[in-house]
Amino acid sequence: MTFETLECEKSEGILTITLSRPKKLNAFTIRMADELVDAFDLASKDDEIAAIIVTGSGRAFCAGMDLTVAGNAFGLDTTLDPSTASVDGWLDDRGLAGIQDSGGRVALSIYGCTKPVIAAINGAAIGVGATMTLPMDIRLCTPAARIGFVFGRLGIVPEACSTWFLPRIVGLDRALELAYRADILTAEEAREFGLVRNIVPEGELLSTARAQAKKFTSNRSPVATALTRQMMYRNSAERHPVAAHKVDSLAMFYTSIGDGAEGVAAFLEKREPRFSTSVVTDMPPFYPWQPDLPPAK
Amino acid sequence: MTFETLECEKSEGILTITLSRPKKLNAFTIRMADELVDAFDLASKDDEIAAIIVTGSGRAFCAGMDLTVAGNAFGLDTTLDPSTASVDGWLDDRGLAGIQDSGGRVALSIYGCTKPVIAAINGAAIGVGATMTLPMDIRLCTPAARIGFVFGRLGIVPEACSTWFLPRIVGLDRALELAYRADILTAEEAREFGLVRNIVPEGELLSTARAQAKKFTSNRSPVATALTRQMMYRNSAERHPVAAHKVDSLAMFYTSIGDGAEGVAAFLEKREPRFSTSVVTDMPPFYPWQPDLPPAK
Amino acid sequence: MTFETLECEKSEGILTITLSRPKKLNAFTIRMADELVDAFDLASKDDEIAAIIVTGSGRAFCAGMDLTVAGNAFGLDTTLDPSTASVDGWLDDRGLAGIQDSGGRVALSIYGCTKPVIAAINGAAIGVGATMTLPMDIRLCTPAARIGFVFGRLGIVPEACSTWFLPRIVGLDRALELAYRADILTAEEAREFGLVRNIVPEGELLSTARAQAKKFTSNRSPVATALTRQMMYRNSAERHPVAAHKVDSLAMFYTSIGDGAEGVAAFLEKREPRFSTSVVTDMPPFYPWQPDLPPAK
Repeated sequence: MTFETLECEKSEGILTITLSRPKKLNAFTIRMADELVDAFDLASKDDEIAAIIVTGSGRAFCAGMDLTVAGNAFGLDTTLDPSTASVDGWLDDRGLAGIQDSGGRVALSIYGCTKPVIAAINGAAIGVGATMTLPMDIRLCTPAARIGFVFGRLGIVPEACSTWFLPRIVGLDRALELAYRADILTAEEAREFGLVRNIVPEGELLSTARAQAKKFTSNRSPVATALTRQMMYRNSAERHPVAAHKVDSLAMFYTSIGDGAEGVAAFLEKREPRFSTSVVTDMPPFYPWQPDLPPAK
Repeated sequence: MTFETLECEKSEGILTITLSRPKKLNAFTIRMADELVDAFDLASKDDEIAAIIVTGSGRAFCAGMDLTVAGNAFGLDTTLDPSTASVDGWLDDRGLAGIQDSGGRVALSIYGCTKPVIAAINGAAIGVGATMTLPMDIRLCTPAARIGFVFGRLGIVPEACSTWFLPRIVGLDRALELAYRADILTAEEAREFGLVRNIVPEGELLSTARAQAKKFTSNRSPVATALTRQMMYRNSAERHPVAAHKVDSLAMFYTSIGDGAEGVAAFLEKREPRFSTSVVTDMPPFYPWQPDLPPAK
Repeated sequence: MTFETLECEKSEGILTITLSRPKKLNAFTIRMADELVDAFDLASKDDEIAAIIVTGSGRAFCAGMDLTVAGNAFGLDTTLDPSTASVDGWLDDRGLAGIQDSGGRVALSIYGCTKPVIAAINGAAIGVGATMTLPMDIRLCTPAARIGFVFGRLGIVPEACSTWFLPRIVGLDRALELAYRADILTAEEAREFGLVRNIVPEGELLSTARAQAKKFTSNRSPVATALTRQMMYRNSAERHPVAAHKVDSLAMFYTSIGDGAEGVAAFLEKREPRFSTSVVTDMPPFYPWQPDLPPAK
């Protein structure tokens, strides 16, 4: 994985993705969106990676969309006339792909990821720098971190599927308040809002994130972890728990004859399990059970 | 806007709706339901209104349905025989419109509103007086406020779509506890439950609500704010984030060529933006992207 | 109700279900699953029961699936070849019923229950011992209680529809963290996570649960309570609040001409109401308004 806007380091089963345009406070570009989508898609299929940490290079996490690029700052094709576009029609019509939200492409890629993802927010996370962390499973930050859903100040709307993720994390009323205020929160305010799980001293941010990633993945089945992540995001949004029950039953069956057999044996023998499945070769045939519309590029 | 049960005051871009039957502790009637629906619908389309505050006249916010009116206290047509009514059929059959929940008509009108809504709960908010505040985005109250989901004590059920809104605000377990207990909570208990955001000294309630409304709307795009509110309520309830992604993409496109162009320019020029769009003339063609069944009257 | 793995006691309108395999720390078996389904289904239709408490015999609540039974520890028929099974197909095909998750059968039975359910967690609640408490409306525990979503340690996935219920109680990010950590939480940690409502001294657990059950059901309409519980679970998961509005309208109509008429009269006469409806004979014709797929056995 070699990228222009990201540094990727694989070590001890953990992929650390560092947003890396430090002179621009790691401001987000279409190139960065494309590279993040690729990095998460590759990591999903790499058995050497058990968990993913995302952080920023230098003193910022991501200062938001790079508004200094030429043309439409959001990378949208403004020569299009989408006056007849409808929510139900546009994604199927590749002629309108030029208006696809780049932050949303990243969010959907993280949503579909098969590994635990931890955001290690080392500084300012503004605009898409804030919303891109919402599909990451856990957010840690330093005391100097700042988080801002500032879209309202720019006359635009929250993006990157953030209106889907944010209310599931902080509640619907607090999500609305954050969007209306459009403020840049301190680390402590973000923690009080339930946005951030822990505030960690600056020098300990990555080591804390790594320790957590290791805890989440040591002696764990890659296939069971991948299924668990997808079950949590997908089953929780279903209308009726019987939808979860169907997936649970298939997933319990497959894991109980897979790594679960070793897990039970190890438990009964009071030893550590040796899990051996691969997300490349051993994901069950019913996965993915819910079609994601392929995001156009 | 002249009403019998409400006082409406428009000032500095803020509409204050005061429930006004003070001798009856602002008890709710079918007339009040009709007038609230009209007030919210009118406000949604009035460019002079940027935000809405709802409060009560005198010492109560709203003491609940006025159970002293003649006939069915809930305004329902009890001559109807709905024994064959089904959830999927009744709303289309205007013959059964006489059983439409009046609190729900108000809730759906607030749900569809294009402006931020703040509940300034100045005293008792009981029954529909409590449930009508749930689709308001933020709830403030005085120390003397009391909030009661008391339906269980009357042998009836929570209404006004409260079983949709309440769990999204306080969580499913706490919503069930509130309904089962059917207690009248103190302001402090309501705050601890997550129902109320802040408790404000009595003399400062309206000024605090106004300050918050101003913060939410000063130098903001009316179109972007309207879209943001609807995206938060609608996208968050979707089964898959790709549904949010479609709306996000269209909304980002339209706002980026609308008020967003000015917003970005102002940001780069380090000045305040001058937003000029109108919710009357400039809402994008894809809005509303989700059909609401028209509530029968 | 006579069972092999449960003790059931009906007293003062409260059914106490005690998981009762104390020598095995009340470990869960297929027999226990079948008996829990039967107990909840019977209780749903028994007018002498107003509320249900679930607790464990001896020092544990439920130590999880009994992994010492012969054959597949999860009661699954491993002679089946479900390689062609799909999420949408399997439940209709009784040939694959052998892979139905037993914890999920219990969870769906509790989900459909018409009475308030309180979990009185008296000790270790591990694996399915933890997930089975999630569809119970409120969780109380003793200081010695331990709660563990330990599936990840065994190479399997969370089951019993827990990925549907858990995020609705603690939020999506905390639900993921609990599943990834797969730790056994202390009572205090469980309370901090929002999993448990109150920690109660050991000798007061059942009396506290009984007092709460009485508070939830004394002078309450059985039909209105049953509808309220089902409305909360079902309406809250709908995509649009108009779905709740339809149910609300029908439920308000039926209760306002049923126990609600007495409730309003008692309120106006300032006396206690005397509710008389029966969940056996008086549930409205529109109930259940949402078909549950019948869980195969």
